[in-house]
Amino acid sequence: MKQKNATLIARLQSGEAIIGIVGMGYVGQPLALRYSEVGFNVLGFDIDAEKVQQLNAGHSSIEHIDDAELTKAVANGLSVTDDFSRAAEVDAIILCVPTPLNKYREPDLSFVIDSVDRIVPFLRSNQIISLESTTYPGTTEEEIIPRIISGGLQVGEDIFAVYSPEREDPGNADFTTKTIPKVIGGHTPACLEAGHALYKPAIEHIVSVSSTKAAEMTKLLENIHRAVNIGLVNEMKIVADQMGIDIFEVIDAAATKPFGFTPYYPGPGLGGHCIPIDPFYLTWKAREYGLHTRFIELSGEINQNMPAYVYGKLSGALNERGKSVNGSHILVLGIAYKKNVDDMRESPSVQIMELIKSSGGKLAYSDPHVPTFPKMREHKFELSSTSLTPESLRQFDAVVLATDHAAFDYEMIHENAALIIDSRGIYRDGGDHIVKA
Amino acid sequence: MKQKNATLIARLQSGEAIIGIVGMGYVGQPLALRYSEVGFNVLGFDIDAEKVQQLNAGHSSIEHIDDAELTKAVANGLSVTDDFSRAAEVDAIILCVPTPLNKYREPDLSFVIDSVDRIVPFLRSNQIISLESTTYPGTTEEEIIPRIISGGLQVGEDIFAVYSPEREDPGNADFTTKTIPKVIGGHTPACLEAGHALYKPAIEHIVSVSSTKAAEMTKLLENIHRAVNIGLVNEMKIVADQMGIDIFEVIDAAATKPFGFTPYYPGPGLGGHCIPIDPFYLTWKAREYGLHTRFIELSGEINQNMPAYVYGKLSGALNERGKSVNGSHILVLGIAYKKNVDDMRESPSVQIMELIKSSGGKLAYSDPHVPTFPKMREHKFELSSTSLTPESLRQFDAVVLATDHAAFDYEMIHENAALIIDSRGIYRDGGDHIVKA
Repeated sequence: MKQKNATLIARLQSGEAIIGIVGMGYVGQPLALRYSEVGFNVLGFDIDAEKVQQLNAGHSSIEHIDDAELTKAVANGLSVTDDFSRAAEVDAIILCVPTPLNKYREPDLSFVIDSVDRIVPFLRSNQIISLESTTYPGTTEEEIIPRIISGGLQVGEDIFAVYSPEREDPGNADFTTKTIPKVIGGHTPACLEAGHALYKPAIEHIVSVSSTKAAEMTKLLENIHRAVNIGLVNEMKIVADQMGIDIFEVIDAAATKPFGFTPYYPGPGLGGHCIPIDPFYLTWKAREYGLHTRFIELSGEINQNMPAYVYGKLSGALNERGKSVNGSHILVLGIAYKKNVDDMRESPSVQIMELIKSSGGKLAYSDPHVPTFPKMREHKFELSSTSLTPESLRQFDAVVLATDHAAFDYEMIHENAALIIDSRGIYRDGGDHIVKA
Repeated sequence: MKQKNATLIARLQSGEAIIGIVGMGYVGQPLALRYSEVGFNVLGFDIDAEKVQQLNAGHSSIEHIDDAELTKAVANGLSVTDDFSRAAEVDAIILCVPTPLNKYREPDLSFVIDSVDRIVPFLRSNQIISLESTTYPGTTEEEIIPRIISGGLQVGEDIFAVYSPEREDPGNADFTTKTIPKVIGGHTPACLEAGHALYKPAIEHIVSVSSTKAAEMTKLLENIHRAVNIGLVNEMKIVADQMGIDIFEVIDAAATKPFGFTPYYPGPGLGGHCIPIDPFYLTWKAREYGLHTRFIELSGEINQNMPAYVYGKLSGALNERGKSVNGSHILVLGIAYKKNVDDMRESPSVQIMELIKSSGGKLAYSDPHVPTFPKMREHKFELSSTSLTPESLRQFDAVVLATDHAAFDYEMIHENAALIIDSRGIYRDGGDHIVKA
């Protein structure tokens, strides 16, 4: 007897299949480009009509995505639409939409649910749906599957469903969509098999797990591990600082141990769309079982307090010099959430800026990746990036090194800044005008 | 002008120097053998007269130290004494004594202090003292240096002092005393230079840090990192278990991420002389600064609860089968604290055994590395290792897999045990008689 998934798998293997990608952001765009690169026709879906137009014109809004590559993909058949009825045209629907937290730190699945609700009326046999958005264990089983079957299709028979978490790391030069192994869990064995056929043409290594919820938990564990390890070194930084020890020196020394230790570095707090947010998806789900996720809560508490810690170091250092934050000219270096990217999401630099502003500091920033302060939902600064020169640096009472972009001229900064609050361990040897924060 | 440390360094470089090692245990013995191997005369010191006699006769009490190697070292001049006045004979004094916790979970430096007090009357110019015992930042400055100078010698001028933490990992086949990089901090620059000369003949890579307290903190950070990461996966295990997810499968899948994730595995609790103990040295010292080390406290709490968690799984599984722990025949597999070693220190298996015994279980154990249950300060079991055969296994109502020695025949155990409580993720596929714990 012919396997139910045979038609779909054959189309994926032959390259005839059309790949639909829902949500054309940090995850969807590189994935679309990768499928295009290996010869598939790709149809992107996005609710943002302006972004749809831009992408079809070959313009990406993401710094590390090359417009030339996008233009080439468009020439090869990539197109983007805001018409979700076209879901009927594609063989695969890969959901790459955001999964943020609401203001009560609870999962906000509205983008996922909304996307699924838009496509459900147009689903048909011989399709596969893959959710890539980070979410709590049970989301696929509890939220996706019931919606798919509400249209009358049987999952594992007519249509197939997998969960396969995205592992994008913008700015990581060592790994790409192609070379980062992809974890996948199927709702049924036939779903898993179809999922393999979906990702095999685009991704070098595929790692199967036994269920969608195991795959959902995998992504959370990765980011929980990171949030907790950063929380730990942030706590250790505070302790070491009080003891007169440089935590960066200690971490580097510990990292020479060839087993049992992996270095994580402290900083001004967590940023980005994953690490500060994802762990709380598990915290929320665990409550249903009467369980507490105490490591997640503790790292959240410590990491969220780091901008205030850095601000405290700034304020203390100014005070020692007989100055107040109020009225001082303060330059924040690096406002993207991490090194060498333009991504401002959840950036702790912005928290520090808010603290300085609310205390009356005269604020400026410099970030080669962020020429003007972007529109953000909760923050508003009418600023553009100050260019760094010996003269411009000398105008400030203090410089807060928040994000350690490679493009900064650290020596020039060292020579010309009156006071540097260093939250990134750049200036290890210290000096009278360096305050480790 | 001749450097103050020149005489000492010359003797270390030429190989004429005599290396004194205080505390001939898990750390002192391999280090003594290593110095002997590279041609130094080594004089070991230990307060245990029986151990002194055994070592001089070429018998090590440590399973992974080969008597033949020890006998060869003795033939080449290694000798061990309990006469601390002979400290005057050696050029270097390396302290490798235990640093446990007292029953209030406070640092117990008595072995360090006692050793130093014994040698101080015999110290002389042109010697170096290195403390290798794990301890809190400030120990060398606050406890060792004042005792050395109490004899009238000047540290950094007459005599030299460094802190260089041991990184022994018994049972690790990939790294030895020679190949594990050694971190070292000097009390003065001349001390650090002398410390380099001390370790360079024996250790391939030496890593300097700026102070003894930075070196002290380095060792603590390594073990805190490990304790916290194990605590985290133990908490995740409990959550995943309730959600019907196998945490071992999830960790293995997460470990396929080529950056940002390092796998740690859950288990029945922490054991050994380092991980359950060392972190609390920092906790204690941090109190002096009014600080809390909350990650350490949390991992301590979670890890210390794991034997009870495993016991709860045992008790629950027996209960489902209509049995009580009271009166049931229960076999604990693996009582050493970790895989493939004979080391019983702080072993969580013993905690599980205590819980079973106090509930009236009829207890047996099997451990190829521990033929009879050793004398322990706080535990007493009149037991010897049960040999594992299909017949012997069938006599037990339950088997608790606590330590996953390679020597166990897991297939045979699987086939013949009525019920297996698996705390090590050996039996991933489960089965009716497997309970993941």
